Amino acid sequence: MWEMRAQLAVLAPGVPVIELFADVPSYQTGAGSFLLAAYNRSFPNDSVFVCVVDPGVGDETRRPVVLKTGAHWYVGPENGLLDVVARNESVAAYWEILWRPTQLSDSFHGRDLFAPVAARIANGDMLTGGDFKQRDYPLAMADIARESYEIIYIDHFGNLVTGICADDFSADNIVKLNGQVVVYARTFSSVPKGECFWYKNASGLIEIAVSQGDARQRLKAGVGDVISLLA
Amino acid sequence: MWEMRAQLAVLAPGVPVIELFADVPSYQTGAGSFLLAAYNRSFPNDSVFVCVVDPGVGDETRRPVVLKTGAHWYVGPENGLLDVVARNESVAAYWEILWRPTQLSDSFHGRDLFAPVAARIANGDMLTGGDFKQRDYPLAMADIARESYEIIYIDHFGNLVTGICADDFSADNIVKLNGQVVVYARTFSSVPKGECFWYKNASGLIEIAVSQGDARQRLKAGVGDVISLLA
Amino acid sequence: MWEMRAQLAVLAPGVPVIELFADVPSYQTGAGSFLLAAYNRSFPNDSVFVCVVDPGVGDETRRPVVLKTGAHWYVGPENGLLDVVARNESVAAYWEILWRPTQLSDSFHGRDLFAPVAARIANGDMLTGGDFKQRDYPLAMADIARESYEIIYIDHFGNLVTGICADDFSADNIVKLNGQVVVYARTFSSVPKGECFWYKNASGLIEIAVSQGDARQRLKAGVGDVISLLA
Repeated sequence: MWEMRAQLAVLAPGVPVIELFADVPSYQTGAGSFLLAAYNRSFPNDSVFVCVVDPGVGDETRRPVVLKTGAHWYVGPENGLLDVVARNESVAAYWEILWRPTQLSDSFHGRDLFAPVAARIANGDMLTGGDFKQRDYPLAMADIARESYEIIYIDHFGNLVTGICADDFSADNIVKLNGQVVVYARTFSSVPKGECFWYKNASGLIEIAVSQGDARQRLKAGVGDVISLLA
Repeated sequence: MWEMRAQLAVLAPGVPVIELFADVPSYQTGAGSFLLAAYNRSFPNDSVFVCVVDPGVGDETRRPVVLKTGAHWYVGPENGLLDVVARNESVAAYWEILWRPTQLSDSFHGRDLFAPVAARIANGDMLTGGDFKQRDYPLAMADIARESYEIIYIDHFGNLVTGICADDFSADNIVKLNGQVVVYARTFSSVPKGECFWYKNASGLIEIAVSQGDARQRLKAGVGDVISLLA
Repeated sequence: MWEMRAQLAVLAPGVPVIELFADVPSYQTGAGSFLLAAYNRSFPNDSVFVCVVDPGVGDETRRPVVLKTGAHWYVGPENGLLDVVARNESVAAYWEILWRPTQLSDSFHGRDLFAPVAARIANGDMLTGGDFKQRDYPLAMADIARESYEIIYIDHFGNLVTGICADDFSADNIVKLNGQVVVYARTFSSVPKGECFWYKNASGLIEIAVSQGDARQRLKAGVGDVISLLA
């Protein structure tokens, strides 16, 4: 990751480089897509995101692409990772990257291909000429899932993040995961130490936590586990 | 954490953003308070620290505050985390933050509330007007502990950091932890591989280590364990 | 590490500070030397690297040094860590650092000694005067190993990095590690999920991986394990 940051820092000096997706669950483009759509909200308009979740690196049928939405720029592989931001923020333009660096490794397109393109965008280059080819987004927006009922991320506290927008639910809803029932609370501070609850997290998603404890251990949960929501 | 860094990088461009307290022991404001006072010494005058250790987020009785000491600025919750720097560096001014952002999550005040205030300070804003209210520090300095005999931090080598200023002790002192006796050495390089010793660490604190080994495993130690010091 | 970054950010403002070697295997200067030589290629000419791998900190016979190669600057201890870059990039100049800071801890020369010197170099200071003394490199280049057949690094996916330049080998070569035979594949995407293979990694080294799996667990491997290469 630091090699990618070094590339960006050198090629786009003055642009803040924030290491965003260092700990997305490996190989899970679906989870990554919902995380990206939830976590990008704090970033200012026209931020440039380099987004890489494998598998697929080295496969020549996996296209490298640039997505411009109404809010941000995204550079990464065409493997589903950008689907949720494409739907949520609407597609302003979409390009396949035809440019290739002189040296392209088989396993680190983040450093060799995506970071240099992101640096060009951050420096204000227009994506014209032969290096980029405009295309339609590969999926119709209606075909992209609005929510994911899976655990898409577990943070270092053991909190379980789902891909469900909390605004669609209320304090009366009950979450069920791995046979256990979890009730709502608004804040950590309102829950006795050691009790499990769900709440609207800082990214707007339904998240399951144990007050000053570890929900992953308590509920024996893992990324990909599916929750149900009872009225 | 990167969301907070993004906020800072955008709102205070040009100000170095150092992710400081990413791995303070969770929920332990006491340990965090001693760590902050030990680790801030390398930072130049007027550095602005965003300090967050829960619990308490979302509890409306937990005040957000700004502390200006003789050396630095601190932005964070009024939950004990700033006590040791307040005593060590003396309180130059203290404010309750009355300002609230348009969108304030219930669980991430670091991003929503503390980072924007830190960015204002880093940009040179004066804390006047209705957004800030000057107050007395909530504790008398005499009521703040000078030292902590607990393990307040364990680094990734397994070294055990205490909250005891090493200057008060000498090579003759013996540390006892979990029934085991630990003698002094000045440097790692003076100790045979595999032996346990205590030394004055780079922050001035008493620290227990195993030369090229793991003191946490050797002494079966955890954060919060209490050491004793024998003459 | 963040204390070192803080030092650098303050003393060399405007110079990008990349935290490079946060996770080199502890105490293993040999592994670190090969990693440094492999991972520094993405960095532009005249980058300044602060390189620290213990043991030896606090030992007054361990000299602090500056190495200028044809490509980069390196600041660190004279303990073997710079050997491979010295041979690969050729030694343009080599200095012992005679300067000492007012406060030099016994255990964190990265922060107290190496980072300030690196900041001076990054700011364009010439290494003249009494603070630096030019010397010959302590080893003849012919005496430095060209390759390491050990596992020198294991990343967070469990991929096993060796210190062998992949260009010297071909798809016909077979790797053997801990009694198991590993065949070549060019890309992750060409290998069925769960299968083990070796490939040329993004730094040019032979690396052993399991497609969407963990090679460390599969091969019960650790840093320092030695591979063999069969024709």
